[in-house]
This record gives sequence, structure tokens and C-alpha cells, in this order.
Amino acid sequence: MATSQHEIEHPRKAFGWAARDTSGILSPFNFSRRETGEKDVRFKVLYCGICHADANQVKNDWGSTVYPLVPGHEITGVVTEVGSKVEKFKVGDRVGVGYLIWSCRSCQSCSDDRENQCSKQILTSGSKYLDGTRTQGGYSDSMVADENFVVRIPDALPLDAAAPLLCAGITMYSSLRHYGLDKPGLHVGVVGLGGLGHMAVKFAKAFGAKVTVISTSPNKKQEAIENLGADSFVVSHEQDEMQAAAGTLDGIIDTVSSHHPLGPLIGLLKFNGKIVLLGVPEKPLELPVFTLLKGRKMVAGSYIGGLKETQEMVDFAAKHNVKPDIEVIKMDYVNTAIERLLKADVKYRFVIDIGNTLQPETS
Amino acid sequence: MATSQHEIEHPRKAFGWAARDTSGILSPFNFSRRETGEKDVRFKVLYCGICHADANQVKNDWGSTVYPLVPGHEITGVVTEVGSKVEKFKVGDRVGVGYLIWSCRSCQSCSDDRENQCSKQILTSGSKYLDGTRTQGGYSDSMVADENFVVRIPDALPLDAAAPLLCAGITMYSSLRHYGLDKPGLHVGVVGLGGLGHMAVKFAKAFGAKVTVISTSPNKKQEAIENLGADSFVVSHEQDEMQAAAGTLDGIIDTVSSHHPLGPLIGLLKFNGKIVLLGVPEKPLELPVFTLLKGRKMVAGSYIGGLKETQEMVDFAAKHNVKPDIEVIKMDYVNTAIERLLKADVKYRFVIDIGNTLQPETS
Repeated sequence: MATSQHEIEHPRKAFGWAARDTSGILSPFNFSRRETGEKDVRFKVLYCGICHADANQVKNDWGSTVYPLVPGHEITGVVTEVGSKVEKFKVGDRVGVGYLIWSCRSCQSCSDDRENQCSKQILTSGSKYLDGTRTQGGYSDSMVADENFVVRIPDALPLDAAAPLLCAGITMYSSLRHYGLDKPGLHVGVVGLGGLGHMAVKFAKAFGAKVTVISTSPNKKQEAIENLGADSFVVSHEQDEMQAAAGTLDGIIDTVSSHHPLGPLIGLLKFNGKIVLLGVPEKPLELPVFTLLKGRKMVAGSYIGGLKETQEMVDFAAKHNVKPDIEVIKMDYVNTAIERLLKADVKYRFVIDIGNTLQPETS
Repeated sequence: MATSQHEIEHPRKAFGWAARDTSGILSPFNFSRRETGEKDVRFKVLYCGICHADANQVKNDWGSTVYPLVPGHEITGVVTEVGSKVEKFKVGDRVGVGYLIWSCRSCQSCSDDRENQCSKQILTSGSKYLDGTRTQGGYSDSMVADENFVVRIPDALPLDAAAPLLCAGITMYSSLRHYGLDKPGLHVGVVGLGGLGHMAVKFAKAFGAKVTVISTSPNKKQEAIENLGADSFVVSHEQDEMQAAAGTLDGIIDTVSSHHPLGPLIGLLKFNGKIVLLGVPEKPLELPVFTLLKGRKMVAGSYIGGLKETQEMVDFAAKHNVKPDIEVIKMDYVNTAIERLLKADVKYRFVIDIGNTLQPETS
């Protein structure tokens, strides 16, 4: 745990909820944001999704948290001010900001629209900004960001459901697209039916794939098929079911963060199939090599997506009516929500109704 | 260890060297081969490479060996007879047979020229053939095979050096091609400088790649650069060298069969880079997930190649003068050669001069 030093007092007041220590408990917090720069878009935050990473961050699970910390990187709202050189947005536009608020825009990754791989990238919450201050996220009343890191939310998407698209959504969309699992007629497996996994099912179906959910929990079957639209369901510890599905999948989106065996999943792949890992287990996973070789299979990773692709994704989601299943909560429910999230007790994403329920402190 | 039952006595006499038990010691062996069928090509064996798999097979390391076993699947020679319906070959042609002597030619894999993934494939040595007899390999005076599993050896390739192309060569060529590492200007790493690895260096150079050899043995540096044409050399346990090479490779061909850490190799890859595994360690390898995700990297496997690609490979090798470095040995040196191979004491492939040194038993 580090502590914030030399914090600059910005000219614009802001208010949100922040974690103050490794308890991770959030409470009301007055802070400040910078003036609207000439390329900046300022917006009133209306909704913010609760990503699993927020829970890790507020509790300093990764050892890099600086308190006080305002989390939140699935942020939607309405533009209130634009800088003099802003070209893409105007006051009143429906917009969003995801996990990334700045990148260098000059390296090879940025030139290739892979800002998610820029080594100088600045995260929306909990990073050091260019001016030396800490970035604070979307559990707050306002945001300000360079227009190149702002996404336009199409009218067809409600701003509450749009919020989780900006992290969970792009992570799934980009995984499927980058690894060529976005073609009609492919058969895609999804392992783990949480915030990420349920979006993988929806995007894969929207791409025209046949989708099989692989889960440890038989009681998720009905939900997966009837509510999320999966075509089939396999219980991963049922040998018969796994055997029957062997060699049937073109690709697998594996969202599980706990330690789990890859061998059985590799067995579900067709020749030349691929597993895309999205979760980060604490220990290395065991990789059985022979089945990988014989079937020319691959195990790959993916990590969020670039800004251009994020805009493409929300446009695609609007057109194909891909929306996360959300539970909208009040701001003062956030601590309970995070505890429930850590127990996987949510279908499938909490979204905080910031606009209606973030009450300024009256003191 | 299984024993051969119900062996059919074929009409054509053959002579070679066979292993009789798990000692793996080879000795002269009289056996028989089938008549030349209408689609068959019969050829006099002149050379046969010694693949690492031969050593595993003669000692029954994989538990599936049936004795007596004539090993050898890197076989070259000259056609002596062709069946009435053979279209591609005539007597006198220079030909070769690799690890595969039959596949179903009707499944999806076969239709896609991926006979190496046909589930009904029959290996050149140590498999059960269609007629119920055991296939016997190229440590023998003659071979007979369906013409679809015979490769034409271009005149520009000596038959001794051509032999190892049929397994080690195609394995490396196909790995580089299948995973898109065959483009000029790419930077390819090769881990392990043995029979497979040295072919990877040569093919990657022929494709126009920059090649870095990664090895545990500093004393291989001069050899790698001066003799094999690698551009640079990194000692895998030298932190400084590994750090200097971090993020520089588009792909890595990893030929190591012993247990080894993948993390440092993943660190050498550029974003979106890939490691292709060719060796089969006994235990699963440890896969660190975070670096894979963040860099969108992948770990993949590859396994030999199809017949069409094998012909393409030998034609490419002839055109670009890609030849394995070989040590040509006499037939009666084979047991010593196998022991030396197991100690990695060969640069880089033993090839048995069958034509000149396989002496028929005089008894």
C-alpha cells in the first residue's frame, strides 16, 4: 500500500465514493478534477459498472493501490462541456469511458489501434496521470478525458446496460474477433458464466456461432440456455458429457480466474482449435503438451481491446441488441455489492445508478 | 510390451535391422513385405535418418512397441517397381517416405491435406497396416507404399541429406508456415539446437527471417551463428541477455523435450507473438497466464505436416539449398548412433547409408 503524495488540487470540484485503506470499504469522498482541456470531453456520470478488478483494486490485491481510490472504469453519461479543439463530441452526447484514459498515440501499438498494449497507457482509475496526479474513476459525479479515449454510446443502447460493455464487453468482443472466433457457423465454448462469460455467450451468438457453456455448476444450465441463448451446456466434472463434446469446439473463451485444468478443455477442441484465457489465476496453469501438438491447438491470452474496436463493439452491440444482464444498484449499496460480487452472487454485472443515487454530502 | 500375433507371411522378402526387446538393441532381421499393389510404389532404400522417436520406439518408451520392430521413417531411395495404376512415379525416380504411410483420404483432415491429423493414419513403422500386419520402417533394404504417401526428391537434393527432411524437416517447415512465421523480415527464435532446432534455423533463414537461437549452452554460439547462419544467440540462463532480447521476437520454435520454463520465453515475444511447441516433455509445462494475456500471446503446438506440404517442403529445400547437417553412418553403427543421439552427441542428424552398408546375412 502506497500513499498519495504531492497531490495537485485541481480547479474543478468532484464528488464520489473512495476506498481509504485495504479494507476496501468505500465511503463518500470530495476530490477535484482538472479543467476541461482543449481536447477534453467533460461529462456527467450517470452509470458505472462494478468490474471484478474494482474489488481487487480497492483491497490492494495487486499491491499497487494508492489511497484514497475512486474505482470504476465502465462509465457512461452525458457530455456537459467540450474543449475548443474537440471534434467528435458536443454537449448532450451520450458517451462512455472504459478502463483506459490515455495512451501515447505514437508507438506501434497505438498506431495499430492497440492502445490496450501501449506501454505508457494510463488507466482510468488508480494510475498516475500526465500531470502527476492520480486518476480517479467513475464512482463519481463527473469525468473528464481526452476525446480520443471517449466512446459514443448509440441511442439504441440504454446507458445503464452500456456501462459494462466498456470493459467486460470489449474484452469478450475483442477476444472473439482477434482470434477469428467471430464467424457464423463456428462452435464456441464459454467457460465460466460470470460478468465476462455471459457477455461471451451473447457476443458469440450475435456473431452467428453455436455456443456451448462449460461450467462446474449444473444448476446454471437452464439459465445459460433459456436466458442467455446458449445452444448447449456441459458440466465440466461429468466425464460422459465432456467425452460426448470432445473435439467439437473451434474455440473456447475461458473466463475462469481460479486454478483449473486445461487438459479437459483442450480435449473439447477440434484440430487447430484455440483456448483464449481471460482470467488470471494466481499460480501458473498446467499445460499438457502432447494433445496441443497432435491437434495443432493453441492456448492464447487476450486483454481488453483498443479504442477503435471499442467503438465498433458498442455500435455492434446496439445493432444486434447485445446487452449485459445487469442489476442496477444505488450508490450506498456499493460495499454490499462488492461483497456479493466476490461470492459470484450477481447476474451478471452490478451497475451503480450514479446519476440518481449519488447524494452530495450535506455537511 | 506387446508381441506380434498372427503375422502374415508376405510374398516379398525383405531384410533390415530390428529391435527385439526393450533393450532397444538392433540386429539383422529377415522379414517380408507385400506384393506391389496397383497403386503402390516399391523402392530400394538408400538412406534412412535416425529420428529421436526411433530411440523412444525401440526401447518401448511409449508402451506401444510390438517386437520385432524395424524403425525408420526418414527414408529415401530409388523406385524399382510401380503398380499398374500408379500415376506419379516411374522406375528410377528418386523418392522418399516419411512418418506416415497411409491415411483414410476421406475425412475432413485428409480432404484438407492434413493427413497428419487423420485419426486413421498408419505410421511407417510400428503400426498395424490395413491387412493386419505390422508396418516396418526404413532400416531395411526396400519399402513399398501407396503412391499418395511417397514424396519426389528433387535432383538438387542429395538423397542422404534429403532423408531427415521427411520428418525433422517437414515438422519445422510446417510449424513456421502454419503459424505465419514464414514471412521475410520477421524475427524468429529457436529454442534447442538439435535435429529439429537446426532445421528450424535453416528454414527460418530461407524464409527471410532474422533468427535468434536461445540455448542453455554458451558453447553452441559459434556453431549457431557461423555454421547454421543464425543472426544472434541468447544464453537462456543469462538474465542480462534475456532482458536485452525481451519483446523482440515474433515467434519462437521451441524444440525442447525436457521440462523447461515457458515464462522467460513468453517474455522474449513481441505483442501478439507465439511460441510453437514441438517437444513433448513428460510432465505438463507451467503456463504463466498474465504475460500471455497482457501481450495477447499464444502457446501452440505443431505435429509434422501433410503430404502435399511435405512435397512443397522438399521442393522449397531444393530451391533454397536447405539441407540438414548430417553424419552418415554404416548400418552396423546404428546401436552406437542411438546411444550417442540420446546424449545429444550428433550434429545434427544421423543418416544410415543403407544402400552401401546393409549387408545381407550370409547364413
